[in-house]
Amino acid sequence: MKGKFITFEGCEGCGKSTQVRLLSQKLDELGVDYIVTREPGGSDVAEQIRKIILDAKNTSMCDECEALLYAAARIQHLKEIVEPALEKGKLVICDRYVDSSLAYQGYARGLGEEYVEKINSAAMSSFCPDLTLFLNISPKDAFARKHGADEDDRMEQLGLEFHEKVYQGYLAVAKKYPRIAAIDCSGTKYQTAEKIITLLKDRGII
Amino acid sequence: MKGKFITFEGCEGCGKSTQVRLLSQKLDELGVDYIVTREPGGSDVAEQIRKIILDAKNTSMCDECEALLYAAARIQHLKEIVEPALEKGKLVICDRYVDSSLAYQGYARGLGEEYVEKINSAAMSSFCPDLTLFLNISPKDAFARKHGADEDDRMEQLGLEFHEKVYQGYLAVAKKYPRIAAIDCSGTKYQTAEKIITLLKDRGII
Repeated sequence: MKGKFITFEGCEGCGKSTQVRLLSQKLDELGVDYIVTREPGGSDVAEQIRKIILDAKNTSMCDECEALLYAAARIQHLKEIVEPALEKGKLVICDRYVDSSLAYQGYARGLGEEYVEKINSAAMSSFCPDLTLFLNISPKDAFARKHGADEDDRMEQLGLEFHEKVYQGYLAVAKKYPRIAAIDCSGTKYQTAEKIITLLKDRGII
Repeated sequence: MKGKFITFEGCEGCGKSTQVRLLSQKLDELGVDYIVTREPGGSDVAEQIRKIILDAKNTSMCDECEALLYAAARIQHLKEIVEPALEKGKLVICDRYVDSSLAYQGYARGLGEEYVEKINSAAMSSFCPDLTLFLNISPKDAFARKHGADEDDRMEQLGLEFHEKVYQGYLAVAKKYPRIAAIDCSGTKYQTAEKIITLLKDRGII
């Protein structure tokens, strides 16, 4: 694959969207050829799957079903969007990826890391990110910043206790995989953006 | 689990629906407490997934996505419908199950048996059927009997060559797992139904 693949991870309200936007502005200035995409979704079939996953009415969904739907949306998005862009040598920036599944379904839902890795084999091997930016902010601080959860989003409705488990999951995953860089987000959004740019330059990604 | 779990398998048009109906009539006569269900679908969330899988417009769906969606619908259906019925001691009759995934995605799509087994771990272990009835009729004969494929069904639109691969997959899977009984369907539907009843009695299921 010619291009580089970087992913953003973190708890709800950690500032991913903001940082993706600030990074995009910088990449525009630098004339980098990149795409921004997101999970779950990012392609027609994957967006259909996204709707089922996030629909707040789907309270009966079991944890394994949720994990398999994320994996299904992920591989479709990889094949339709990520792979072709990487083949063209573009930098691919993806908002959430397999580490979300490890943290949310593997740790917080309790399905275990091994199960999540097993059903996401392509994401764990041939489509392993070159760098993962984990925006390290606790759910309590992140929720305060976000001013409440989205009522129509099944995942955001899960409460602070669940999101605390997600955070612990992220910390464990970040410790395990050297491709994951934990970014301290205690400063302003511009300070965080600056840290990300510096890291991308240090790693030779831009 | 107190109840018994039996599944029907076979190529498109092999007569599964007819045999499920004839078996149900017999079970009514015998006063057996049973439920009839089907895959993919059978529960609210699983039916939403079914729509995505079978929608003939979803031509861009990759093979892994398809396999993962089947696995997602399967586990949801197991948890919501099959498991509670088995717990109550009911006989559960399911039209299609994990062997469909082995034959269609594992063999015909070429993803391999191991991959399909890996993403369907619950169906291969704790929810392994007590008996699987494979209605053994070649796709050519089955298609002739069915008078053509459904235009709105993505799976039925795949053509005879694909369905011949599915059939070869079924033959391989039937050889591997002793729980699968291949039923010769060359006689009338009533003769086939009689064979199924005899088998269920022989195995102590009814």
